[in-house]
Amino acid sequence: MDERTGLPVVGMVGAGQLARMTHQAAIPLGQGLRVLADSVDDGAALVAHDVVVGDYRSLDDLRAFAVGCDAVTFDHEHVPNAHIAALEADGVTVHPSAAALVFAQDKGEMRRRLSALGVPCPRWAPVDTENDLAGFAEQVGWPVVLKATRGGYDGKGVWVVSSVEEAAPVLASGTPLIVEEKVAIVRELAADVARSPFGQGAVWPVVETVQRDGICVEVIAPAPDLDEDVAEQAQALALRIAHELGVTGVLAVELFQTADGLVVNELAMRPHNSAHWTIEGSTTSQFEQHLRAVLDYPLGTTDPVAPHTVMVNLLGGPDDVVPKGIDERMHHCFAHWPEVKVHLYGKQFRPGRKVGHVTVVGHDLETLRRRAREAAQYLMVGDAAGTVPAHG
Amino acid sequence: MDERTGLPVVGMVGAGQLARMTHQAAIPLGQGLRVLADSVDDGAALVAHDVVVGDYRSLDDLRAFAVGCDAVTFDHEHVPNAHIAALEADGVTVHPSAAALVFAQDKGEMRRRLSALGVPCPRWAPVDTENDLAGFAEQVGWPVVLKATRGGYDGKGVWVVSSVEEAAPVLASGTPLIVEEKVAIVRELAADVARSPFGQGAVWPVVETVQRDGICVEVIAPAPDLDEDVAEQAQALALRIAHELGVTGVLAVELFQTADGLVVNELAMRPHNSAHWTIEGSTTSQFEQHLRAVLDYPLGTTDPVAPHTVMVNLLGGPDDVVPKGIDERMHHCFAHWPEVKVHLYGKQFRPGRKVGHVTVVGHDLETLRRRAREAAQYLMVGDAAGTVPAHG
Repeated sequence: MDERTGLPVVGMVGAGQLARMTHQAAIPLGQGLRVLADSVDDGAALVAHDVVVGDYRSLDDLRAFAVGCDAVTFDHEHVPNAHIAALEADGVTVHPSAAALVFAQDKGEMRRRLSALGVPCPRWAPVDTENDLAGFAEQVGWPVVLKATRGGYDGKGVWVVSSVEEAAPVLASGTPLIVEEKVAIVRELAADVARSPFGQGAVWPVVETVQRDGICVEVIAPAPDLDEDVAEQAQALALRIAHELGVTGVLAVELFQTADGLVVNELAMRPHNSAHWTIEGSTTSQFEQHLRAVLDYPLGTTDPVAPHTVMVNLLGGPDDVVPKGIDERMHHCFAHWPEVKVHLYGKQFRPGRKVGHVTVVGHDLETLRRRAREAAQYLMVGDAAGTVPAHG
Repeated sequence: MDERTGLPVVGMVGAGQLARMTHQAAIPLGQGLRVLADSVDDGAALVAHDVVVGDYRSLDDLRAFAVGCDAVTFDHEHVPNAHIAALEADGVTVHPSAAALVFAQDKGEMRRRLSALGVPCPRWAPVDTENDLAGFAEQVGWPVVLKATRGGYDGKGVWVVSSVEEAAPVLASGTPLIVEEKVAIVRELAADVARSPFGQGAVWPVVETVQRDGICVEVIAPAPDLDEDVAEQAQALALRIAHELGVTGVLAVELFQTADGLVVNELAMRPHNSAHWTIEGSTTSQFEQHLRAVLDYPLGTTDPVAPHTVMVNLLGGPDDVVPKGIDERMHHCFAHWPEVKVHLYGKQFRPGRKVGHVTVVGHDLETLRRRAREAAQYLMVGDAAGTVPAHG
């Protein structure tokens, strides 16, 4: 508790864009987020007041960071689970718990648990050897998807392979792996929920996430033309997973929509790219909701504020163009797209890296999508006169 | 320019709630606000990263603060005008300029200038002596309103007097004063605009500001049942004042609506309480807009996002109730009013002090007003079961 304000202190391990946007949401709640940063130049470290530089892999650093925090939570999944359990044993309030977070840290654990719960997943198996792989592929057919059980993100740690030979280098690397069938995807959806320690749940409208090269490039809220029953099914599934796994805070359930229904792709237990649209598009943003949840405050209304919200990620373009000139491009962007809201994360621009996003809210979906894409394209590459990026 | 991000640095003199909310708006723009704070415990100093503690009355402190700022702007009107002019002479980019800001710093200068422009104002006169006062009152009738030309806010520095005798202590105090007729007010309105150095102007819908004891307690956006012509007149007037006075940044024009039309009450050249509703209620908040304006970025869309927005100020209640228990009251508030957005400023609670505000956006104005008032009442006094505060 901060004695100056009478309000709680939340500490977030990690100081990337999620921490940056969570700090932004903490300010109106009368709080300031405490962040454990790798570096003083991390996106959240540039804007938060209470910045501790340390190593999230060090239990000593985590313990020192937790002193004075009413709740500790996470910007990413990479904190060793045993360290989180140790903090809990120390009496630190940690959300999500080590017991819950493991299902977002380890894809094998996640698949095992969801399968046990009867949650629809792609067919999958643990895989150690070429024989394991060949046996699995015989059942489901090539190609199959190899996934590192830990540490993957934005398409990293995922390999689509069409033969044992192609998979050999990955198998030989010693990375713990699972293998999954390659699902015939109609499109990708996400059902984002929050759950408090008290057990209250709140769910946002189901969104469509548009991917390119394994990276989310665009989110459309709500998912266009989604059957109402399927949307409710997705929301109920996400709430059920949050409950069964004991998730506290935001849970993002990434889903594949297939001809045969929904299957779960991934879980994340933190604010998630698929819900950045909620900053402008929902009465309660995912960042405020995450804070409310980890503090066991009652959750906020998740109603959308307009019929449609579109979010487009800003992916770093060619090095010789950015970040040089970003300020000038901001001028042009604001002139051309005065209704588009820009979010920059304070990160170094690198090709393909998520360095920000834009959001636009309104009534005509096709116009919103076009304008958000054009604004994003212009901000990253500086040529809105050209074709819009091939996102969809 | 911050070399890490390629984006500009805005410095705000003062670190109260306006700076706090401006920092919040700076984050998505890829920036962090630099604040000149009186104390490390100031509301904005608790949440901003780049905090300089210094004295806004010291030119040396202001000069040191300005180094590295792409633009310097203000959280309040109390910086000596000559210091601002000295910064400008140094080559510092300051918005608003000393030449403009004087009209928000000195009510005599403001009245002289607006009268010269033909802008409708209450009848007024400079006043030094009892004779000046008696002569003015003979013309307009008692009671009259004495105003300190400088330093007043929230009803401070304003005296309604019904006789020379009643005015005598104020006149004898040596405070520079003007006197104004006591206008027969139908209600109070505000027209908030932003203007960039390039000369672009943008105006929000005209709002009604509900006052109690000279303090704004509630803002309704847009002003209910306001004649469209009068609204346009108010907006045009505010844009004209911004242009004529060379205002850069946000300009709040406080207006009296009378049976005979609109008259200007006060000017403020900074984000203003009457536009706090824009955080949730408009596509572009006044805080983002102020940053865009002082950086000479093109301005953002000012459209409201819903038919009605209501903002109610949180005024510190009895000392023995607050801030003790604010965290518990936040729990109850969130449980009862999940759609209400709470903004706390990180300030010590004192009776009557503005320590935060709540905002609610939606379709049914009476419901919005009732719920916002109840939530505010509960947060401050902890008894929502009682009657709602006598705001209106």
